Amino acid sequence: MPGDHLPSKGSRYEQLADEIARQIEDNVLRPGDRLPSVRQACEARQISPATVFQAYYLLESRGLIRSEPRSGYFVNPRATTRSLEPALSVPPKGAHRVDITTLVMDGLTLAADREIIPLGTAYPDPSLFPLDTINRSLGVSARQNDAWSAVNHLPTGNERLRREIGKRYLSHGTDIGVNEIVLTNGAMEGLNLCLEAVTKRGDSVVVESPCFYGALLALERRGVKAIEAPTHPRDGIDLSALANILETQRPQAVWLMTNFQNPLGCSMPREKKRALVDLLTRYETPLIEDDVYGELHHDGETPSSAKTFDRHGLVLHCSSFSKTLAPGYRVGWVAAGRFADDIRRLKFMASMAGSIPAQAALAEYLQSGSYERHLRHMRAALKAQKEALVDSVTRHFPHGTRLTRPTGGYFIWVDMPWDSTDALTLRDAAIVEKISVSPGPMFSSQGEFRNCLRLNFGHPWGTNMEQAIATLGEIAGRAPAAMIASP
Amino acid sequence: MPGDHLPSKGSRYEQLADEIARQIEDNVLRPGDRLPSVRQACEARQISPATVFQAYYLLESRGLIRSEPRSGYFVNPRATTRSLEPALSVPPKGAHRVDITTLVMDGLTLAADREIIPLGTAYPDPSLFPLDTINRSLGVSARQNDAWSAVNHLPTGNERLRREIGKRYLSHGTDIGVNEIVLTNGAMEGLNLCLEAVTKRGDSVVVESPCFYGALLALERRGVKAIEAPTHPRDGIDLSALANILETQRPQAVWLMTNFQNPLGCSMPREKKRALVDLLTRYETPLIEDDVYGELHHDGETPSSAKTFDRHGLVLHCSSFSKTLAPGYRVGWVAAGRFADDIRRLKFMASMAGSIPAQAALAEYLQSGSYERHLRHMRAALKAQKEALVDSVTRHFPHGTRLTRPTGGYFIWVDMPWDSTDALTLRDAAIVEKISVSPGPMFSSQGEFRNCLRLNFGHPWGTNMEQAIATLGEIAGRAPAAMIASP
Repeated sequence: MPGDHLPSKGSRYEQLADEIARQIEDNVLRPGDRLPSVRQACEARQISPATVFQAYYLLESRGLIRSEPRSGYFVNPRATTRSLEPALSVPPKGAHRVDITTLVMDGLTLAADREIIPLGTAYPDPSLFPLDTINRSLGVSARQNDAWSAVNHLPTGNERLRREIGKRYLSHGTDIGVNEIVLTNGAMEGLNLCLEAVTKRGDSVVVESPCFYGALLALERRGVKAIEAPTHPRDGIDLSALANILETQRPQAVWLMTNFQNPLGCSMPREKKRALVDLLTRYETPLIEDDVYGELHHDGETPSSAKTFDRHGLVLHCSSFSKTLAPGYRVGWVAAGRFADDIRRLKFMASMAGSIPAQAALAEYLQSGSYERHLRHMRAALKAQKEALVDSVTRHFPHGTRLTRPTGGYFIWVDMPWDSTDALTLRDAAIVEKISVSPGPMFSSQGEFRNCLRLNFGHPWGTNMEQAIATLGEIAGRAPAAMIASP
Repeated sequence: MPGDHLPSKGSRYEQLADEIARQIEDNVLRPGDRLPSVRQACEARQISPATVFQAYYLLESRGLIRSEPRSGYFVNPRATTRSLEPALSVPPKGAHRVDITTLVMDGLTLAADREIIPLGTAYPDPSLFPLDTINRSLGVSARQNDAWSAVNHLPTGNERLRREIGKRYLSHGTDIGVNEIVLTNGAMEGLNLCLEAVTKRGDSVVVESPCFYGALLALERRGVKAIEAPTHPRDGIDLSALANILETQRPQAVWLMTNFQNPLGCSMPREKKRALVDLLTRYETPLIEDDVYGELHHDGETPSSAKTFDRHGLVLHCSSFSKTLAPGYRVGWVAAGRFADDIRRLKFMASMAGSIPAQAALAEYLQSGSYERHLRHMRAALKAQKEALVDSVTRHFPHGTRLTRPTGGYFIWVDMPWDSTDALTLRDAAIVEKISVSPGPMFSSQGEFRNCLRLNFGHPWGTNMEQAIATLGEIAGRAPAAMIASP
């Protein structure tokens, strides 16, 4: 069975917390009700006080109950799990080696079958991209393709495209010179080069918990350990936990997705980004900022990035057009601050230069001025699809399921009760039903989040999607007896 | 001055050898003449017997003189330096750290100015490539671009293109499954991934002497040491020296360009390739085979590769379309034998996938059947240009200059007498005259080959080229007094 090597989920205190959460959900416990005292609970259930304390603490962090000094714990007024988001994550402490490639590649291979309902893929529906228009740009730029440019492209890449990227930074309030920008083969190559620029084998890097599996793959490849930091599903990494890690563990770098993080969908508010940069500056620790989803906000304006607040060249900002415009073109970039020369050198050593026609086509497209119109259309579609998915999961998944409601990107994170079907088992059962999902352990170096799924809402909503969610919800609730830990 | 940190060139024995070579060239010493005995030479010049022996040995290895048992050394019958090729290289022994990026990147930056006569570039003239036809293929494949393919390309890349590559292997006598082939961002990414698959930091890898600077850059990036092996300018690495290195130093891999090596232009004969594979198989040592020039033979048929003889999956064969068809597209591949799964995994970790439109355009072009016709045209042009360049260098460079006459590719290696202008000084003086060259030290981890240049004959011949070679020859002969070592 896949995942047999992973630690078992659902410790005793989580089971207790979920049981109480369900009583709240089912109105057995009502707002204002007092919970059994720790001693009562210990006696009634033959468990230790520590277990009860941990369970109450977890319920408190989820916003379901509150403690009142000298009175005990009480159910919160508007607490209903239906509307609740997952709690702040509590990853295992310390720096850990990463070994996740097989799990990730298996997952993506399963998701590549086009007969499958693609709730597990990493990309939105191709119909959201203006492929015809970009292909026309490819034709135009191919005809203009100067013969010399084909053989004398420096490692930094097409200058016209770098200018267009520089203009977009400026329009979002960040002033970046064209020469700081190095074009890469998608953001993934850029992120790998950044990691190479700021770490060596055996170093440690702080990531979110859960975090993008691409970050874990890059750490694994580089032989760098992951320190997973508590991360809030709405506003991202916990800065006091990060400060503590910086002080006590002195990691060589921090790698974050500051906007619409994959998989949580969380975004750091503007002032939190500023505080993050201040904190990192105090420790002279570089930030690898993966910002590939920033342009896909559902409302309002393109959010700031940590890069905006960087006065010391410590932020290596990576992005691409793969999520917003042209996935197959594999055109990304890095604006690496004080590390820009290193990135240029490493890019040259790694692959000399990027694909000229792809870069020229995107430059042509951006100059045509159609990008903003396309993005507006794409954002509106993603927002509508998110609402449909959230509504559907809320109706079909087991009682006590919590989920994120991101304001950008195209992923939600679904946190199922402890007695739901294990996420890896669920993944396998779903594939039989021709539905893909991304199981939680893909997003952790330690096989955590076995009760979590990442679902993609980048695809048009329809009855097939609604049916797929109903099927997933049914599988999630099919908890085999063997999987329920005895009390 | 660039290169000040490099070791001085022209040791005493090399000076003596060049002096005698010039006497032969000038007919002061004629075919059949007996050279002074070692004792006579020692006394006449106040030098040690070892110096004389080394000089005579060098002249012998260059084919200028021969030793006859109990009679002494004699000038060879048809010996004239005009027709001679450089000698087998004698690199410093041992494994060495590499630090060459700055030298290489400076060199390439200088060569990127299109006002400059491009004898130093790494590419042939863009006019040799069928850019219009490929751009039309790009247009055709863009219109056929299936939306799904844009988001579900696995790390191995476009299957149609991999099939076409597999067919070409087969037509050259090598049977490779489509699934062994992984498409990469140019050969350079592929070579880096191969190195990553078979080495770790601190390992040693055997390379040719001189060798392609891209190999040195990759070793530097990976923190792997270079063992430079004696290499013959006509038939490549010396197998007995390699056997000795394998036995005594146990390197983790060997990295060779088996056909039309950059910079020498040497090619291993078919049987030597077979012997190479046998030797490596005995030591279970993987071969990274860089074969980007194989298709650019000037006569006859596409040569075999070491891969052809590999029965144990030890050869990681890398190539690309960058030198033969579409430089700016950056489409290369690896057929990595027993390491194919590792390469697929590493490719995914490094950059997920390659550029879909570029891959699709090349698949379209190859299927159109125009590739062979284009190659025939390109080969004929390169052959004519080689003859013009060799003739011009022979007429304009200082007496005693030796050069290679490769039967493929588009580089010659020019080995100037020890009292010529230092190659790095020459490079700087040439740039002032708007001519680029690639100085010898770019091709060595130890700053060797300071009397050598790589010249590119991939550009149309004309009076400007002839004039450029005359200028280079004049600079080469301009030896400043300070540079001549006292006898």
